Amino acid sequence: MAFILRRGMATMASVKRANKVVCIGRNYADHIAELNSARPKQPFFFQKPTSSILLPGEGPVIRPRGVNLHYEVELAIVLGKQVKDLEADDDKGALDAIESYALSIDMTARNVQNEAKKKGLPWDISKGFDTFLPLSQTIAKSAIPDPHNIELYLTVNGEPRQDDSTELMLFRVPRILSDISKVMTLEAGDIILTGTPKGVGPVVPGDVMRAGIRVNGKELEEAKIEVA
Amino acid sequence: MAFILRRGMATMASVKRANKVVCIGRNYADHIAELNSARPKQPFFFQKPTSSILLPGEGPVIRPRGVNLHYEVELAIVLGKQVKDLEADDDKGALDAIESYALSIDMTARNVQNEAKKKGLPWDISKGFDTFLPLSQTIAKSAIPDPHNIELYLTVNGEPRQDDSTELMLFRVPRILSDISKVMTLEAGDIILTGTPKGVGPVVPGDVMRAGIRVNGKELEEAKIEVA
Ligand SMILES: [Mg+2]
Ligand SMILES: [Mg+2]
Ligand SMILES: [Mg+2]
Repeated sequence: MAFILRRGMATMASVKRANKVVCIGRNYADHIAELNSARPKQPFFFQKPTSSILLPGEGPVIRPRGVNLHYEVELAIVLGKQVKDLEADDDKGALDAIESYALSIDMTARNVQNEAKKKGLPWDISKGFDTFLPLSQTIAKSAIPDPHNIELYLTVNGEPRQDDSTELMLFRVPRILSDISKVMTLEAGDIILTGTPKGVGPVVPGDVMRAGIRVNGKELEEAKIEVA
Repeated sequence: MAFILRRGMATMASVKRANKVVCIGRNYADHIAELNSARPKQPFFFQKPTSSILLPGEGPVIRPRGVNLHYEVELAIVLGKQVKDLEADDDKGALDAIESYALSIDMTARNVQNEAKKKGLPWDISKGFDTFLPLSQTIAKSAIPDPHNIELYLTVNGEPRQDDSTELMLFRVPRILSDISKVMTLEAGDIILTGTPKGVGPVVPGDVMRAGIRVNGKELEEAKIEVA
């Protein structure tokens, strides 16, 4: 896998197995509103290349020239087994497929994405630059008893920008895994990003992003991301 | 990698290393015209998941319900080394990065793609179903002295549908690898699809696609694809 060879970290064994990273778009109503997007009738998704993964300590995030770079904090799921044609009401099947979690920032070249949307072109360039996927350490499954009841936050230079509960997800994890797995077989190690709450915005060179997860008001140390 | 575990073929070692499959869109003028698309000023690209790869003998291609399924025959490049920030005029660097070739069919859910284009949504669903990337055996680099001077063809039930020279590519291999590698680092084993010539069209259940490559008028046996 790309980033084993390139980065050679000895930990995070499961993340290193990633074949693909699949991301849900528009999964929080207030985020849809802030970008003036249409609310999807069903989950839609896109891929980020595994080459975009930035492991803890590997920063900074590259600001490509001419790019309006936005952060989007998201809960990431790391799969522990193959998932294919999962039924949308199979809550147990979905939960069983989860090996662990991570916090992620879905870095997005917003102007490039807006141009692609306007022209009906793919999103891959806007989402896929190297370093566009900062991840936290992996988070044990047991540390997140309910993925729909945690708080995600992100600050820029110490100023709060995003802070919402995952209970606001429009499509929940079983539905997400179901819809994706009816198109593409998911494999152990694959990573799923579950969408971002409101508050996305730009970062410029020198800005420091800090992000984390609270479970019942308590900070998860392993979920912390700090990246310039 | 997904399809090692799932498919367990002992050959095609290089293809099995694929982390990502990156595909160029609209790279032949007559194909752009037949889909009434705009001619791109620079190459744009999208990903197919590695889970969509269909190795020789593994058919058929799945026809998802409600999908208008189109074939697109394309020359695929298999990389033998990392490529990052390649310059567009670095013909030698591009050629050195190629380990081998394959023939590919970029199966596309055309109605899903058209809907995505209209709504400004990602192309991933339309391009990413399991089995949507039939590949030939790998083709030794030496069998294709010039990737811009071979003929690609595809027939459906024996009827010719696509048959054109790769000399018609709008953006050639060095430019393609350059543009992609300035966004995402390419790794050994990654696969690049170089776009389809004119003649794309639908296939329905029971149809048999046969595709191949001619070099100086001579058929390459290892490039043949036959898939239902
Ligand atoms: Mg996102
Ligand atoms: Mg891999
Ligand atoms: Mg194509």
